[in-house]
Amino acid sequence: MTDSSVKELVEDVARRARKAGTVLAKTNTRTKNDALLAMADDLEKQKAHLQAENTKDLAAAKDKGITGAMLDRLTLSDKVIASMSESLREVAALPDPVGEVTKMWRRPNGLLVGRQRIPLGVIGIIYESRPNVTADAAGLCIKSGNAVVLRGGSEAIHSNVAVADILKKSCKRAGIPEDSVGMIATTDRGAVDHMLSLEEYIDVIIPRGGEALIKKVVQTSMIPVIKHYKGVCHVFVDESADLDMAVSIAVNAKAQRPGVCNAMETLLVHEGIADAFLPRAAAELGKKGVELRGCPKAQKILPDIKPAGEDDWYEEYLDLILAVRVVKDMDEAIEHIETYGSLHTESIVTRDYENARRFLNDVNSSCVFANATTRFSDGFELGLGAEIGISTTKLHAFGPMGLEELTTTKFIIYGDGQIRT
Amino acid sequence: MTDSSVKELVEDVARRARKAGTVLAKTNTRTKNDALLAMADDLEKQKAHLQAENTKDLAAAKDKGITGAMLDRLTLSDKVIASMSESLREVAALPDPVGEVTKMWRRPNGLLVGRQRIPLGVIGIIYESRPNVTADAAGLCIKSGNAVVLRGGSEAIHSNVAVADILKKSCKRAGIPEDSVGMIATTDRGAVDHMLSLEEYIDVIIPRGGEALIKKVVQTSMIPVIKHYKGVCHVFVDESADLDMAVSIAVNAKAQRPGVCNAMETLLVHEGIADAFLPRAAAELGKKGVELRGCPKAQKILPDIKPAGEDDWYEEYLDLILAVRVVKDMDEAIEHIETYGSLHTESIVTRDYENARRFLNDVNSSCVFANATTRFSDGFELGLGAEIGISTTKLHAFGPMGLEELTTTKFIIYGDGQIRT
Repeated sequence: MTDSSVKELVEDVARRARKAGTVLAKTNTRTKNDALLAMADDLEKQKAHLQAENTKDLAAAKDKGITGAMLDRLTLSDKVIASMSESLREVAALPDPVGEVTKMWRRPNGLLVGRQRIPLGVIGIIYESRPNVTADAAGLCIKSGNAVVLRGGSEAIHSNVAVADILKKSCKRAGIPEDSVGMIATTDRGAVDHMLSLEEYIDVIIPRGGEALIKKVVQTSMIPVIKHYKGVCHVFVDESADLDMAVSIAVNAKAQRPGVCNAMETLLVHEGIADAFLPRAAAELGKKGVELRGCPKAQKILPDIKPAGEDDWYEEYLDLILAVRVVKDMDEAIEHIETYGSLHTESIVTRDYENARRFLNDVNSSCVFANATTRFSDGFELGLGAEIGISTTKLHAFGPMGLEELTTTKFIIYGDGQIRT
Repeated sequence: MTDSSVKELVEDVARRARKAGTVLAKTNTRTKNDALLAMADDLEKQKAHLQAENTKDLAAAKDKGITGAMLDRLTLSDKVIASMSESLREVAALPDPVGEVTKMWRRPNGLLVGRQRIPLGVIGIIYESRPNVTADAAGLCIKSGNAVVLRGGSEAIHSNVAVADILKKSCKRAGIPEDSVGMIATTDRGAVDHMLSLEEYIDVIIPRGGEALIKKVVQTSMIPVIKHYKGVCHVFVDESADLDMAVSIAVNAKAQRPGVCNAMETLLVHEGIADAFLPRAAAELGKKGVELRGCPKAQKILPDIKPAGEDDWYEEYLDLILAVRVVKDMDEAIEHIETYGSLHTESIVTRDYENARRFLNDVNSSCVFANATTRFSDGFELGLGAEIGISTTKLHAFGPMGLEELTTTKFIIYGDGQIRT
């Protein structure tokens, strides 16, 4: 494709999405839910077609030598398709954030002023690999009254287009515009740049992928980006911690699923409890295959572990590796988090009221826990009902994002003739 | 200055502000208020010094041939200094948004999950001309627990630096870091570009100035920008409108202060009331010196007015000019607003319950009024207590922004040992 025809294609998808978005913003909850349920049914009914299209992507991937986890993520297995449908039904069952009046007050001149949730408009999603994101993201956007413009990875192009085509037809059948689901159906690399320039048509970009993708999107985009760089999560075991609880939380935070962003990467231990805690924790972590890398003080207590260098404190291992540092008090722990952390998720294990209070108050990461594993830093687990992503920057949303984070508020004002003098 | 020394200067200010911000985030309300009150006092006490510095800017401006309103805006008169101090005292008296728990709920596993307001961190303000913005913006940022990095127009450099130096000393005296107020004290044009690349140190950029400045900032910035392009505000006079009220609102919306963004630029009139309304409105608007430009139907009723071209519907006149269009019903009015509007502020004048309901519901501009002037679209008038700016894009904030809009929320979670299985 020529650059100008790519540009035209992208603009056309985005312009149609903008138009669909103005309709969706006025669509009632029942109709939006009908569309989501129709999507869920249609994906299941068209399983054979989806898997045939998916096979094309899988064949191309194999030709490129892609194997293992990468290939798994690309596969639309029966189970993946069932879970896409299940997710859509779950989102249909959630409350609709649109229309909620979050506050309302009367002014001295009699004006009644309220803040009411409205959709953002058009959400742009740029993602890698997994074709189930196509359905998941479209479902969340439509439920919250937004149109979506999807741009998936080139390795999943056939699967993504097949999923989007089904969803479009489901929308139409349920009585909402098929352009509510916009898909950039080209693998041309210039398409993303064009997409990121269309601030007239797209209100926010949510990139889902590695740090390199996200950096590039932020650099290029004229449209606001909600981003998630990385999760360097900490657990601080305070001097007063219950030892059993501290070990249980440390093991869970590191080893229950090490490859995710809310897994612990650095364990901070108060020096007053390090002698008692570290050998027990090391034994339990060792059983899970976790490799420890410690500061000099930690190495004194655990002579067999490797040293941790300055780089380790910044590292998001996403693996069975854990950096361990012994600190002289909570202030040093908080200072460590402020210096090396990623504003994602931190937890304190303590029996001390004042330390819990102060840790929750003073640590300004997106999720701050007392006496619980960092692994709960997740939209579902926190009770948001769904998750479109996690933001580690503070603007608009900070932390796990659910349906509410796909809305904004407008002011609605009821008057009876008031003018300004 | 060489480019690398400009870069160093800008980075130094921003890095210090980041550090000050982490202190400010933990500073209690009383201390922040003390700082604001010290600022207010010190500006008044140092009036002579401020005005001496201001004279340098005024002399340079006169040399460049600047006169009239531009020169007025640059002048630190006794009145302007008094009003800077007064604003700071008003902000000190407002409730502190930081620490508010906006919601809290319990999960089935016993976790108690809350969302708590925290400062954004460091706010970058890029502004033109008026040196009072230096104090106003600094006051709002500090009250909401944020450090600020200020970059004013080169024509006000001496005044801005003088104001900032005073504020820094007030901060120190009140016990908060003087780096809470960062000032980019160079007129080098490269400084803005460097500032906009420092996403590590600055959390959000709020540009205050003309559309050209804002476009440039959006294009360059790696940091999220809260922006306000323009205000093409509409009043729709419905068929059922009370004529006296409609005339009063139209005149107020257009003529009470025509040069501001919440003034009406286009008047939409239902054809069923146009014959009765337009001659009365034209007479009253005429008394205020307003020039009307009408669609063909409006021209039929008011034969003396100029025609309105397609461009007029997009125009933010900021002047005593008003575009007038007769529409066949409310749907056509809403369609006009969706096509030509700027998402800023719209108002319906009506006696019809269902039309008021539907206008407030279906129009998704940042402020939607029934039976009141668009001129109330303002942080003070709506009851936010203060205004740092108005956002016409939906991310993070939409419409007038007060102290709450300078905060975000983190999740705080109280557990008793919960882990994930």
